[in-house]
Amino acid sequence: MLRLGIIGTNWITQQFISAAHETRQYQLTSVYSRHLQTAETFAKDYGEVAIYTDLSTFFASEDIDVVYIASPNALHYEQSKQALQTGKHVIVEKPAVSTLKEWEDLLALAKEKQCFIFEAARNIHEANFQQVKELLPTPDKIEGATLSFMKYSSRYDLVKAGEVPNIFSPKFSGGALMDLGIYVVYAAVALFGKPTQVQYTARKIKTEVDGMGTLIFHYPDFQVTLLTGKIIDSFLPSEIYLAEGTIILDAINSIESIRYFDRKTQEVTVIDVEKEENPMVEEAMDFANVMLQPTKGLYQKQYLYWQDLGRIVHEIMEQMRLENDIIFPADRKI
Amino acid sequence: MLRLGIIGTNWITQQFISAAHETRQYQLTSVYSRHLQTAETFAKDYGEVAIYTDLSTFFASEDIDVVYIASPNALHYEQSKQALQTGKHVIVEKPAVSTLKEWEDLLALAKEKQCFIFEAARNIHEANFQQVKELLPTPDKIEGATLSFMKYSSRYDLVKAGEVPNIFSPKFSGGALMDLGIYVVYAAVALFGKPTQVQYTARKIKTEVDGMGTLIFHYPDFQVTLLTGKIIDSFLPSEIYLAEGTIILDAINSIESIRYFDRKTQEVTVIDVEKEENPMVEEAMDFANVMLQPTKGLYQKQYLYWQDLGRIVHEIMEQMRLENDIIFPADRKI
Repeated sequence: MLRLGIIGTNWITQQFISAAHETRQYQLTSVYSRHLQTAETFAKDYGEVAIYTDLSTFFASEDIDVVYIASPNALHYEQSKQALQTGKHVIVEKPAVSTLKEWEDLLALAKEKQCFIFEAARNIHEANFQQVKELLPTPDKIEGATLSFMKYSSRYDLVKAGEVPNIFSPKFSGGALMDLGIYVVYAAVALFGKPTQVQYTARKIKTEVDGMGTLIFHYPDFQVTLLTGKIIDSFLPSEIYLAEGTIILDAINSIESIRYFDRKTQEVTVIDVEKEENPMVEEAMDFANVMLQPTKGLYQKQYLYWQDLGRIVHEIMEQMRLENDIIFPADRKI
Repeated sequence: MLRLGIIGTNWITQQFISAAHETRQYQLTSVYSRHLQTAETFAKDYGEVAIYTDLSTFFASEDIDVVYIASPNALHYEQSKQALQTGKHVIVEKPAVSTLKEWEDLLALAKEKQCFIFEAARNIHEANFQQVKELLPTPDKIEGATLSFMKYSSRYDLVKAGEVPNIFSPKFSGGALMDLGIYVVYAAVALFGKPTQVQYTARKIKTEVDGMGTLIFHYPDFQVTLLTGKIIDSFLPSEIYLAEGTIILDAINSIESIRYFDRKTQEVTVIDVEKEENPMVEEAMDFANVMLQPTKGLYQKQYLYWQDLGRIVHEIMEQMRLENDIIFPADRKI
């Protein structure tokens, strides 16, 4: 059983705790919030849970094996570092870091401390995503893809009113690519591998981050178009184009429907999906497996794979941001 | 009544003749084909129709007011020129020309000969397209769009077998952009105006034309992503993003369903559409109106608008091709 401490008292933290408990591999023991009352209100649903308003005291706790971090993006790196330094495993919400260098730093520190660090890019852990991956033929039979995830954030109302909410603030490593975009980037890299070249045409908003944009990933024999945005609502499905047909997904994040169009027969086959009600259960289970059975070959291999995936993803994220002059404080530290 | 001569004996010519007859403004009088038997077989469904296998004799005919041209793309320009020189009006399938210069030449020649030339970009003439256009708010309330038209051409099977069918041949001004792509380019320009900047990331195939690709059109306050392809099958709808909701179209070519998602109420409204069974009826009627009532203000204005639209479209098409090193024989003549 993994004793769980959490940073952040948002709905996503509640959803992660539910998922963690559902796996029966975690038990929430500790809650951190800057404000005592917020922490108390949050913790009261979870029985006997320690409450912290001081981060160092929280990290010093003997009752925590793994910390789940869902603070604003720009705080992830320092908090992950502190957690690792006190010998805790870390599960950090995507984007785990603001730059590739931060990711490399955290991986090195985790290794040194014999801890694990996981980026909670939940979509690639879902059973349905794995199923799509298994449907893929060899790369020479792939002709391309269009992957899309665009949803309006109500916090854009604040931007229109002249404010700068974290999610749209360069100071907090915000913007569409960092928020929903990272899901499509993870999906593309997990499905098709590292692209040979990337392009990002961002539409910047007045807070100096990207509100939406279109990415193109080049591969030796095909190209993939990715659409992301936080300032509009889209209902576009995602599609993977094969030499002999098309795989149609209702979404690339939290896939609920997979269909295959066969060009020869012109028939559409519905492929069965298995969907957890809570989309964070699969990642929570994946991470628990590694932490609880670190010597098992399969789990070692998975962990190395996620490290590499993160490397490719954050290299791409950084390059695409910088090409669009989206600058974070973390960039100045490199 | 407009006496109609046709060049090309493909299914699209049959469809245009049906549409033209449906408007009751045209009467087919003449058919041209290089091969007598093809022409005879084609003409036998249409009663008393003259048959030509010599193009000069066809153009010299006194029984033709307007020529509809549906030959391979690279022949459009010379055939249109010949038709105009003999005082015929011209309706030419899209792409009407291979370069902007050819379009300008044809417009000038038509003016000199007091004839009209029309590019049969049928989607912008459809009642449903007009309806979408009317739904659009002022540009400051537009946040972007994703417009898409990708369909596998069975002639790509021939490319795989080592052949170079016209539609995929640079010699015949082929490729995805010239074929299906021009519909999305026309739609974007008709809906949003001339972009300030364009980008085209083409995936080239072994015949040295584009098999598919992604275009980005930049406007002062938003950007539009266009997807086109002839080597894969896509079922993606098209979407227009507004400040307060999203317009969802089942397609941007031959629109059969228009829905509006209102962000505030989260409700989807189905907007009534009126669809001609034959998607060429509306353009045939539009063109007939100009030819039959050339002095009417509305029709004069429409004709000028189509000329300008064609100028913008062909300027973009040419620039995007050249940036992707897709070179046609027509480029060498400039």
